Amino acid sequence: MIIIMKKDASAHNIQKICKQAGKSGLAVDILKGTGRTIIVIENIRGPLESSPFELNEDVEKIIPIAESYKLAGRNYKSESTVVKVGEAKIGGKELVLIAGPCAVENPDQIFAISDIVKKAGGKILRGGAFKPRTSPYSFHGLGEEGLKLLAEAGNSAGLAVVTEIIEVDQIDIVAQYADMLQIGSRNMYNYQLLKEVGRLKKPVLLKRGLSATIEEWLNAAEYIMNEGNHEVVLCERGIRTFETQTRNTLDISAVPIIKELSHLPIIVDPSHGTGKWNLVPSMSCASAAAGADGLMIEIHPNPDEALSDGFQSLNFDSFMELAKQLKKIAMAMGRSFG
Amino acid sequence: MIIIMKKDASAHNIQKICKQAGKSGLAVDILKGTGRTIIVIENIRGPLESSPFELNEDVEKIIPIAESYKLAGRNYKSESTVVKVGEAKIGGKELVLIAGPCAVENPDQIFAISDIVKKAGGKILRGGAFKPRTSPYSFHGLGEEGLKLLAEAGNSAGLAVVTEIIEVDQIDIVAQYADMLQIGSRNMYNYQLLKEVGRLKKPVLLKRGLSATIEEWLNAAEYIMNEGNHEVVLCERGIRTFETQTRNTLDISAVPIIKELSHLPIIVDPSHGTGKWNLVPSMSCASAAAGADGLMIEIHPNPDEALSDGFQSLNFDSFMELAKQLKKIAMAMGRSFG
Amino acid sequence: MIIIMKKDASAHNIQKICKQAGKSGLAVDILKGTGRTIIVIENIRGPLESSPFELNEDVEKIIPIAESYKLAGRNYKSESTVVKVGEAKIGGKELVLIAGPCAVENPDQIFAISDIVKKAGGKILRGGAFKPRTSPYSFHGLGEEGLKLLAEAGNSAGLAVVTEIIEVDQIDIVAQYADMLQIGSRNMYNYQLLKEVGRLKKPVLLKRGLSATIEEWLNAAEYIMNEGNHEVVLCERGIRTFETQTRNTLDISAVPIIKELSHLPIIVDPSHGTGKWNLVPSMSCASAAAGADGLMIEIHPNPDEALSDGFQSLNFDSFMELAKQLKKIAMAMGRSFG
Amino acid sequence: MIIIMKKDASAHNIQKICKQAGKSGLAVDILKGTGRTIIVIENIRGPLESSPFELNEDVEKIIPIAESYKLAGRNYKSESTVVKVGEAKIGGKELVLIAGPCAVENPDQIFAISDIVKKAGGKILRGGAFKPRTSPYSFHGLGEEGLKLLAEAGNSAGLAVVTEIIEVDQIDIVAQYADMLQIGSRNMYNYQLLKEVGRLKKPVLLKRGLSATIEEWLNAAEYIMNEGNHEVVLCERGIRTFETQTRNTLDISAVPIIKELSHLPIIVDPSHGTGKWNLVPSMSCASAAAGADGLMIEIHPNPDEALSDGFQSLNFDSFMELAKQLKKIAMAMGRSFG
Repeated sequence: MIIIMKKDASAHNIQKICKQAGKSGLAVDILKGTGRTIIVIENIRGPLESSPFELNEDVEKIIPIAESYKLAGRNYKSESTVVKVGEAKIGGKELVLIAGPCAVENPDQIFAISDIVKKAGGKILRGGAFKPRTSPYSFHGLGEEGLKLLAEAGNSAGLAVVTEIIEVDQIDIVAQYADMLQIGSRNMYNYQLLKEVGRLKKPVLLKRGLSATIEEWLNAAEYIMNEGNHEVVLCERGIRTFETQTRNTLDISAVPIIKELSHLPIIVDPSHGTGKWNLVPSMSCASAAAGADGLMIEIHPNPDEALSDGFQSLNFDSFMELAKQLKKIAMAMGRSFG
Repeated sequence: MIIIMKKDASAHNIQKICKQAGKSGLAVDILKGTGRTIIVIENIRGPLESSPFELNEDVEKIIPIAESYKLAGRNYKSESTVVKVGEAKIGGKELVLIAGPCAVENPDQIFAISDIVKKAGGKILRGGAFKPRTSPYSFHGLGEEGLKLLAEAGNSAGLAVVTEIIEVDQIDIVAQYADMLQIGSRNMYNYQLLKEVGRLKKPVLLKRGLSATIEEWLNAAEYIMNEGNHEVVLCERGIRTFETQTRNTLDISAVPIIKELSHLPIIVDPSHGTGKWNLVPSMSCASAAAGADGLMIEIHPNPDEALSDGFQSLNFDSFMELAKQLKKIAMAMGRSFG
Repeated sequence: MIIIMKKDASAHNIQKICKQAGKSGLAVDILKGTGRTIIVIENIRGPLESSPFELNEDVEKIIPIAESYKLAGRNYKSESTVVKVGEAKIGGKELVLIAGPCAVENPDQIFAISDIVKKAGGKILRGGAFKPRTSPYSFHGLGEEGLKLLAEAGNSAGLAVVTEIIEVDQIDIVAQYADMLQIGSRNMYNYQLLKEVGRLKKPVLLKRGLSATIEEWLNAAEYIMNEGNHEVVLCERGIRTFETQTRNTLDISAVPIIKELSHLPIIVDPSHGTGKWNLVPSMSCASAAAGADGLMIEIHPNPDEALSDGFQSLNFDSFMELAKQLKKIAMAMGRSFG
Repeated sequence: MIIIMKKDASAHNIQKICKQAGKSGLAVDILKGTGRTIIVIENIRGPLESSPFELNEDVEKIIPIAESYKLAGRNYKSESTVVKVGEAKIGGKELVLIAGPCAVENPDQIFAISDIVKKAGGKILRGGAFKPRTSPYSFHGLGEEGLKLLAEAGNSAGLAVVTEIIEVDQIDIVAQYADMLQIGSRNMYNYQLLKEVGRLKKPVLLKRGLSATIEEWLNAAEYIMNEGNHEVVLCERGIRTFETQTRNTLDISAVPIIKELSHLPIIVDPSHGTGKWNLVPSMSCASAAAGADGLMIEIHPNPDEALSDGFQSLNFDSFMELAKQLKKIAMAMGRSFG
């Protein structure tokens, strides 16, 4: 970190910082040439806390120069991580399509959906069995019954399945049915849950928090990886802004930024990212063209009868049309699809 | 809810919505006077899902007219709730002062602090034993040892204590030592944790999520109250904006808005809300003048040696001076203090 | 507009609103079926002010149902507008490439750039002669000398030119040299300037304000169109959010939203939208895949010697490579390029 | 500025930066101790452009250490500036109350208002004659007729007057009638207008841009001051966030931050800052308690008949009650009022 001292910093306060750093075994260097003292402190062993220095009354500003995460960083591992989920290899040459309903509702719905996902070239079936909802009075999913249906439908169609886990207690039951566990936006800061899935040997799909910075998101991945599970796929799903035309503002620039900072694969969820089904096709193509490793899209045979989030689900016709368009974009990007 | 149909909506689609509503036992009214059809649907029994209607292709817009929460609303209970924590009555005439360190570090620190909190007119001692941190490599608190020290220091000084619970498994141990349990910003969407503290008979301090809307925040309170625990105190602690001069932007207008929408008491945490100790006094006074029922302030005997968040902690001199100023503001507002 | 009255609204206050509306010659309809009174008011002649009703003490909420703009709306003109600038037709089948330096610096620079823009398949040369800068001490452009160089370079390479106008007094001189006038983000709310360019017979490139909502942006277009000039091209260039990895968050979803709400063409400026040259190629491809009608990209022969915004400019090699990639995306989208 | 080089930066690229800096006559210092090269560059003469260095391929990050403004900074002038407007001294011991209607509508309205402002202890009458509006179809003010009425009403009641100027051409006429000229939020980046009022010898009230950072705001003040006019009063009026309960989020923390960074006085406009009249009293008290030098409040004899922004205007009774409360807060803060 770089500590910029005030112009009239006292020798006493400058020494104090150097001593504090020395006590923690940190390397210190000092620069006095241009009118004010600048202290550079580095820790060879890992991330560094700035707190002890921030209260020195002669400190004007502290600038971190190392990232606060390590295992998730491109500096730690320069080649890109490829996460295998069933037949899909997320992070490789393929543009992986994940699709399914917001919530598993009944056998007819989920089997019809798994068929169409397969037909469209999808590799992974998504579907919620435990739904976190803003209001305690909303539909919260079928629970284990939903997990079973999801697994059966995936199995029957030859698709891997991904589903969200929202409570620590569900971990065994969800891991039993799912090929990949999803940590939703609301749980990105739920460190207990992150640590628990970090102890599994299953891929984890980690959604960006509702308003998480990219650095916080990579730190959430770090929590998982630090427990031993390095099979993490990041998922951009929109951030909060002042614009009210969309539920969230899909931050597609997160794709190339993550590619630069981290070796982990990144996919995009344009359904939650926009909250409007009619924006999903264009935002899917945009995400693919930005270099996303995959897409996760909500579909429903009859979106207007969906038990949750119907307004952001594609019907089967729109979905098949989008899949065709995605194939073209994938080819233009030199990627395989389907 | 009000459903505005497109100008050229078909009779079929209008009837479809009325039927869907009828099936769920909802009251429906239709208006056709001014060129487009507007359908009003109300549910006498509680909040209402808009999803089933949102996918009708002839719907232009759906506008909720009832709140998504109920028990937390001023409509449910018109008189203000007063939550008792030790001697403090939060939500009444008193401006309640809560103060303490970010993290309990050792006996000397916490006993020195509890003395000064008492002296300043504070009623509740805060202190973290389990610390959620963005990076897995940061200091995470003393655990149960910290809880014990906190309780002893509070007891010795005659102060109630509040501390954060971050994992469901900690609930028994934390409830054993604390007079009020804090749900931190990162856990505002952790519905499992909300439901668990909802089953306790202890006051809960519910911080606003990092970027939660006021409606989501009240819904989080609803999760707690829906389990039977109505002793909820809300705590504004800053929201994310583009401004980089402060860690967060303290949304003081949340105070009068909460007072209007809800009967629950609201306090303000200017330490996390700004992230800079030198802004804490002015923002504390501002919050009190806006009508907050209390303040929660971070203090430390030697902020520059604090193990976490030292840069937002007041030292004892600044804290005593602030307490004097708060007393004046409280009197100007017709409230008691200390 | 829809006016939702409070549950216990008085007959007096309901009548008052109806009278106020009647006085202004507005159509009124009332609905009383489901427990509260809802009043719908429509104006056949144009947008409607909600202010006179908003202060009625029994009004709970007012919801606008018509857009505040008219000429810019898809309702006013259902077929898409195509704006011709030199050989380029923005808003048609073609993906139009606009490129050039942030600021025109000298003949060598601008002629070298115009050559490479032509070679890459670009149709329009951009370049600033009058630069608005946050600090009064920054480089503010060459003025008329810059305009001349820009026009000569464009002419010589067979490219149309676009440049920013920042003050009303510059309008004649800029219109003399430029084929399209750019209104920058900082001036999107400068209604005097909007009205002035609205009286010209030249295409206008209207950038989205630094934090403008899409509705405000379309209203800015309305100011121009209301003066008679309907040749408006919208340009998305990023909005302010809490994320600090990028200068702005490029809101690519604005592309399909504008396509839905308006008949005007929309292009994207990924250089200002991200503020980092290394994100420009992926965000350009993403914008094209989202359906943008064109791209405006900053380039420089030696970005590290540029007098302004060098860090977001592509060098010639990266630019030629991007043009190749854009051609592939355009084809995948069924559009022409170059 | 501090330039952090990449870990493997070449000697060539390090030297290049030093040479570039040397050419511009800047002082340079280099630090190599802790694994990577850090270059510190300072300009004794004024603010510094980072652009020339930002493109060096071995640069990882550039951190400005000096502010981009100068005259507006506390470093330039340590004692607080007091701006005199009529009898009011903004920036001194007094809490100055400015009030009036959004728009001057007719003699009865403005004379009734000026009387009540005087009675409440106000020192300055505000009122719009030229109104910038989002939609070209909204009410845009009475023009010079409005200015005359405002001046007469102010004169008759013994109040100074402030009004907004929105176009450069209005400068003479507005300056003729007003004691202080207001630059509105939409014009904070209108550098031509800033420079023009910078050449006057009249106080300027500079509102924060709709989503301006504090640094950009101080730079806008710098544009005015750089032309010779140092009589600038800053006015916080809310920023854009994701929260929809209020029109804007009033950033009260801007008050102590401006006090730290700048010597200029700062007032708060809670009417625009919240957009809801019922939040105005609490936010006014909060702003005063945060240390604001004054308040600007919208009032109207019949808010529900106001031609613009009625929903954020106080009626006379609420205004008089607020004035009483403000006096108490001012006294608690050791300030005078009225």
